[in-house]
Amino acid sequence: MSETFVTVAGNVATAPEMKQSVTGVPYTRFRLAATERRYDRATDRWADGHTNFYTVWAWRALAENVAASVGVGEPVVVHGKLRIVEREDKGQTYTVVAIDAAAIGHDMNRGTSAFRRTARLRMELADPPAELAPPQRTTPPKPPGRAKKAQAAADQERDEVASEAVRAPELVS
Amino acid sequence: MSETFVTVAGNVATAPEMKQSVTGVPYTRFRLAATERRYDRATDRWADGHTNFYTVWAWRALAENVAASVGVGEPVVVHGKLRIVEREDKGQTYTVVAIDAAAIGHDMNRGTSAFRRTARLRMELADPPAELAPPQRTTPPKPPGRAKKAQAAADQERDEVASEAVRAPELVS
Amino acid sequence: MSETFVTVAGNVATAPEMKQSVTGVPYTRFRLAATERRYDRATDRWADGHTNFYTVWAWRALAENVAASVGVGEPVVVHGKLRIVEREDKGQTYTVVAIDAAAIGHDMNRGTSAFRRTARLRMELADPPAELAPPQRTTPPKPPGRAKKAQAAADQERDEVASEAVRAPELVS
Amino acid sequence: MSETFVTVAGNVATAPEMKQSVTGVPYTRFRLAATERRYDRATDRWADGHTNFYTVWAWRALAENVAASVGVGEPVVVHGKLRIVEREDKGQTYTVVAIDAAAIGHDMNRGTSAFRRTARLRMELADPPAELAPPQRTTPPKPPGRAKKAQAAADQERDEVASEAVRAPELVS
Repeated sequence: MSETFVTVAGNVATAPEMKQSVTGVPYTRFRLAATERRYDRATDRWADGHTNFYTVWAWRALAENVAASVGVGEPVVVHGKLRIVEREDKGQTYTVVAIDAAAIGHDMNRGTSAFRRTARLRMELADPPAELAPPQRTTPPKPPGRAKKAQAAADQERDEVASEAVRAPELVS
Repeated sequence: MSETFVTVAGNVATAPEMKQSVTGVPYTRFRLAATERRYDRATDRWADGHTNFYTVWAWRALAENVAASVGVGEPVVVHGKLRIVEREDKGQTYTVVAIDAAAIGHDMNRGTSAFRRTARLRMELADPPAELAPPQRTTPPKPPGRAKKAQAAADQERDEVASEAVRAPELVS
Repeated sequence: MSETFVTVAGNVATAPEMKQSVTGVPYTRFRLAATERRYDRATDRWADGHTNFYTVWAWRALAENVAASVGVGEPVVVHGKLRIVEREDKGQTYTVVAIDAAAIGHDMNRGTSAFRRTARLRMELADPPAELAPPQRTTPPKPPGRAKKAQAAADQERDEVASEAVRAPELVS
Repeated sequence: MSETFVTVAGNVATAPEMKQSVTGVPYTRFRLAATERRYDRATDRWADGHTNFYTVWAWRALAENVAASVGVGEPVVVHGKLRIVEREDKGQTYTVVAIDAAAIGHDMNRGTSAFRRTARLRMELADPPAELAPPQRTTPPKPPGRAKKAQAAADQERDEVASEAVRAPELVS
């Protein structure tokens, strides 16, 4: 069994930002907060429990549509491959829990959703010819106050996951 | 382990129709078609594989938002509890594969989604007081040409699943 | 998203029987019964709820080890791909809910499990050479009282799923 | 949707050790390593990919049976609730990715499994009377060389998860 999938319903905690990988593949990344709801027998009510945080990565068409559709605070359901990445920075290890998204939608438990199909070819070819490549986009300027350390970590993370996605385009189809 | 959950990305195969259970709980039901994508090494391409069909049930706020948002042919991602129901009709057994939905969203692999939060209380109280009960809705008239047999089966299925949902409101929160 | 996976904990309802497909791939099949446990607030106790039934298919090494390890009534946890197959027989349609197993284990909620690793090559080659093929096994004689109709349906089901597995050996690695 | 479940097939990376929580509930903990298998089109072979590490927690009967059955290096399939816990120690944050196990079994892809049912009552009562409580066990002496810091973190983690499990016994039934 090669991969571990999860489905998480939660709230978008940071603004989705679309960039592109070194090989020109668009990707969008955001933080997701998922809070358990627990039934408390003593009070006969539901209450908030523990919150899990994830970094969600979307690629290609999914990345473009998420960037065009999803804002901070909105409820979404995310299905994808779970990836736990250990990192080192100055002798200190930390852990990133990422979801390589296979599908993302607004959670209709909380509201309505107006869908509009995008007119584009499905990105499921093994080796897409150049004319099918997504249009080049300008990377938005980095916020000036962003710490170099955080930036370096994000870049490293992106490159790792990006290289995976290029090798395995089916993940994002 | 008490329940089996699935996440299915597919296309809506029948128009979602909202009704209400005998106890006044709104529910929406539709058929979902989920087609595998398989990588064929011989041709180095992806191709359609087997299609699974499900009957998706949503309740309360989710039912209302799905009925207001989702049309035939649209791509959705559905997460919920899998329920396989054997039925008998005139000595003949048949099987319904249902998903008791916990979350539904438009699949942003295929397009954009404009979300609008509904201003309503979360239906997570153990025993909602009468004033919180969803407004009574008129059941739409049955299509005249519909076979009695199919109708009776649908009613039985609804009543079964509805009674479950009333006992376990957390499923639809 | 190409496939739908489920994890089911339940009890083995029919004796696992190993056979081999027309292409010589060993497979084992059994029925699995999975009963929900529901908390009843009125009585403050847990009670049995609905039971789902599945046909579980295992292939190659997993098939051999399951056939050598698992008996009727034992509790198992099964993870695999969900496949809902509609069938016709004499103008009558019925539905088989199958799990194409990726992993199977005895459920240690109910007892202990003594594991013994089998010394064999992993069956993960794209095209295994003849000398790696599993040893030919004699198909056990069909029980004489078995209805022809049931047999024909089982054969058809096996051939369909078997042909899939041959095309996609990764499913059973 | 209150909880996020995962199913992970991997290898046991540390010896399962059974202890008991402050309220007398037995629990067993071990590290699990799950390595992706990826198909490489260029070489037409499968290769190892990224490895995820988890801390698996089992409770009550499952804890006892796992402690009696599972050793380092053995392949298991684990199904349970995913919990990502952020921790601080001396101003430094780190992350523990835990699975609160609902079911654990030896993975029969790799070998055979001899099951033996344990003769014990199912621990699914809401408030088990004292005489049903699992027998008191002596906590094994801590290894003398173990760093205080690691010990303190483990204790904190245990207490957090233990208190959850006591509130929600259904998780381990």
